[in-house]
Amino acid sequence: MTMCTCVWFKQYSNERNLAVNPQGGNTGLVGGSVPVFDEIILSTALMNQVISFDSVSGILVCQAGCILENLNRYLEELDFIMPLDLGAKGSCHIGGNVATNAGGLRLLRYGSLRGTVLGLEVVLANGSVLNCLASLRKDNTGYDLKQLFIGSEGTLGVITAVCILCPRKPMAVNLAFLGCQSFSQILETFTTCKRMLGEILSAYEFMDDRCMKLVVSHLKLSNPVTESPFFILIETSGSNSTHDQEKLNNFLECVMASGLVTDGTVATDDKKIKTLWALRERITEALTYDGYVFKYDISLPVEKLYDLVIDTRVRLGRSAKNVVGYGHLGDGNLHLNITAESYSHSLLDAIEPFVYEWTAKYSGSISAEHGLGFKKKHYIQYSKPWEAVLLMQQFKAMLDPKGILNPYKTLPSSS
Amino acid sequence: MTMCTCVWFKQYSNERNLAVNPQGGNTGLVGGSVPVFDEIILSTALMNQVISFDSVSGILVCQAGCILENLNRYLEELDFIMPLDLGAKGSCHIGGNVATNAGGLRLLRYGSLRGTVLGLEVVLANGSVLNCLASLRKDNTGYDLKQLFIGSEGTLGVITAVCILCPRKPMAVNLAFLGCQSFSQILETFTTCKRMLGEILSAYEFMDDRCMKLVVSHLKLSNPVTESPFFILIETSGSNSTHDQEKLNNFLECVMASGLVTDGTVATDDKKIKTLWALRERITEALTYDGYVFKYDISLPVEKLYDLVIDTRVRLGRSAKNVVGYGHLGDGNLHLNITAESYSHSLLDAIEPFVYEWTAKYSGSISAEHGLGFKKKHYIQYSKPWEAVLLMQQFKAMLDPKGILNPYKTLPSSS
Repeated sequence: MTMCTCVWFKQYSNERNLAVNPQGGNTGLVGGSVPVFDEIILSTALMNQVISFDSVSGILVCQAGCILENLNRYLEELDFIMPLDLGAKGSCHIGGNVATNAGGLRLLRYGSLRGTVLGLEVVLANGSVLNCLASLRKDNTGYDLKQLFIGSEGTLGVITAVCILCPRKPMAVNLAFLGCQSFSQILETFTTCKRMLGEILSAYEFMDDRCMKLVVSHLKLSNPVTESPFFILIETSGSNSTHDQEKLNNFLECVMASGLVTDGTVATDDKKIKTLWALRERITEALTYDGYVFKYDISLPVEKLYDLVIDTRVRLGRSAKNVVGYGHLGDGNLHLNITAESYSHSLLDAIEPFVYEWTAKYSGSISAEHGLGFKKKHYIQYSKPWEAVLLMQQFKAMLDPKGILNPYKTLPSSS
Repeated sequence: MTMCTCVWFKQYSNERNLAVNPQGGNTGLVGGSVPVFDEIILSTALMNQVISFDSVSGILVCQAGCILENLNRYLEELDFIMPLDLGAKGSCHIGGNVATNAGGLRLLRYGSLRGTVLGLEVVLANGSVLNCLASLRKDNTGYDLKQLFIGSEGTLGVITAVCILCPRKPMAVNLAFLGCQSFSQILETFTTCKRMLGEILSAYEFMDDRCMKLVVSHLKLSNPVTESPFFILIETSGSNSTHDQEKLNNFLECVMASGLVTDGTVATDDKKIKTLWALRERITEALTYDGYVFKYDISLPVEKLYDLVIDTRVRLGRSAKNVVGYGHLGDGNLHLNITAESYSHSLLDAIEPFVYEWTAKYSGSISAEHGLGFKKKHYIQYSKPWEAVLLMQQFKAMLDPKGILNPYKTLPSSS
């Protein structure tokens, strides 16, 4: 399949100036994986084979079109897991995950793909294959070229195979779902949590009461704790269930006694764990039932995270139906979502560039994990200085001089 | 200081074509930080200030000339640690660590700098400052330019400030020093260790009996266990000493009962921990007393790791004094060292390119963590295909068209 991709580029795209839109599971949220004008879609769907897995080192090599959930299922049978997990796992491809530097639910524990991806095979615009598919944890021979393709959304090359380091499947997983009275208490609970749960902490997610109302009313899920302004979901993953439960209980006693947390429930069995995760994971789905959704994916210093939600709510007043905040607090990543009865240009004008300017003011990122794609490429300057954008454009011109790789994406036009 | 660096490049280096050799603690092993001909040394020694530290997120921002050990000491008072640790910590600079993508003793636990470095400030060859000093765990706005400077040994830009994610200081540290009868038992012990110690495993180092003989005879250290062909050092770092000791004891009972390990000792107090670490950390020092040392830093699939030592020993026979193997087994990283009474050209010819060819045959890296610098740049093709080297040369030409940044290093000349 990689050879087909090369031949395609050599014989068609490059020679005839045909633009290509690489596409994995097409689950992105910024239009990076859909053609804009007349680009030809290059799908990775048939490149779906595992190439090798080493159970001593935990190193997996596979083709780019493998679906994330399938890889995880394959690994679980061998007592390993993928180092990333996200809502779209049932259809997203590992090649697309790497091309967009996907974050998701396990980043807090296993780190970003920049650390776990050990090697890539990439087809360049001129049809040559760049083989950086090393299966080594350490390799300091020259520049780390693969990093340039991670997160470049298919604009510099087409990822055809991936080598990734996988952690062992944890023997025990526990969940706590807690109610909290203020955002500052969420932060203090996080600090306590990092101290007392330490190495077993694998997720620290938060959602506000508006999110809870939406999943309860639109999806008929039940809130397992008393009404609170905020909710926290904490997951632990470890190698000894007795130890993990003891650590979790000690932590819960401490935050309950100090009043940081006002109510909570714990799950140790698979079924209840899934029920509690659904409250957080299905917020996106609940939002779609609420009307038209304006979606923002923001990184901020954690202390500032929720102020953006409050300020946006005040600014929009009654012109928005709901302004909600949730996300991966442990990573400083806020998903700010605004719903309205229907799309309105004046509402969009009230939101943008306000949200971007607010984020830039506190040195945040206007796209924490979704990328820029087609929809957000013009906002890059809110998070990157112009010298950096200029350099990115030079890289693009060098690697794709004819502009045939996923054009109109990621970077603003250099002219 | 950053401004001085810019002015320097603008007014002197770039305009007058003066080549520059960026230098941190000058602790590298491949000649990357020393001038070759008439380059001017640009030292980071005076850029030694911490800029900020956020104790909720664990994010540190500091100037490039901060000494690693000083940063660690600063963080320990705030209950955090640096995510990397290496023998040269007392004099190496964080800027140099990042420029060489240093690995070291904590990589197994906290991952590589590619995941923990969140932002960089870099002065480019034309004197402009590239500010990618974001303090965010997630930022997917455009290409991740900072990655190109990590591990490029000062050949693409001079790192002037670093933003890095730091883990909490572990509340409990334990060490086990074990004797083992064969290399395959070391591997099986590693698999058992990952399963039973899981999230608290922070180091898995090995050394052979020749290393032990050297530290015992040259440094007068004592071997704390019975004579064995191999020794393993296992470190755990966790948040609960009772749990950690219980896990370690369960693991030791298991590997002793199954005969994987034949003798061992455990340390929980600081003094004994340091004594045991010294056996592993001071091998380099012991080697210098043994004669002239030929040093190799190799990544290999773990199953193949020690075969290189055996084959080299057989090949060199009595022409070498000692051929020893040790290293970060958990990372697939072997330090192969060969000593002789004095330097000999014929011995070098017997070692090289043999060691590089052997490594290439098993898809290893001829420089796992030391980089290529001046000494190893011509061997890059053993670990990277020529398309990759060509692309690296294009990056170099784009970012440093006059070739004034650390010339004669990392890459073979493009002509």
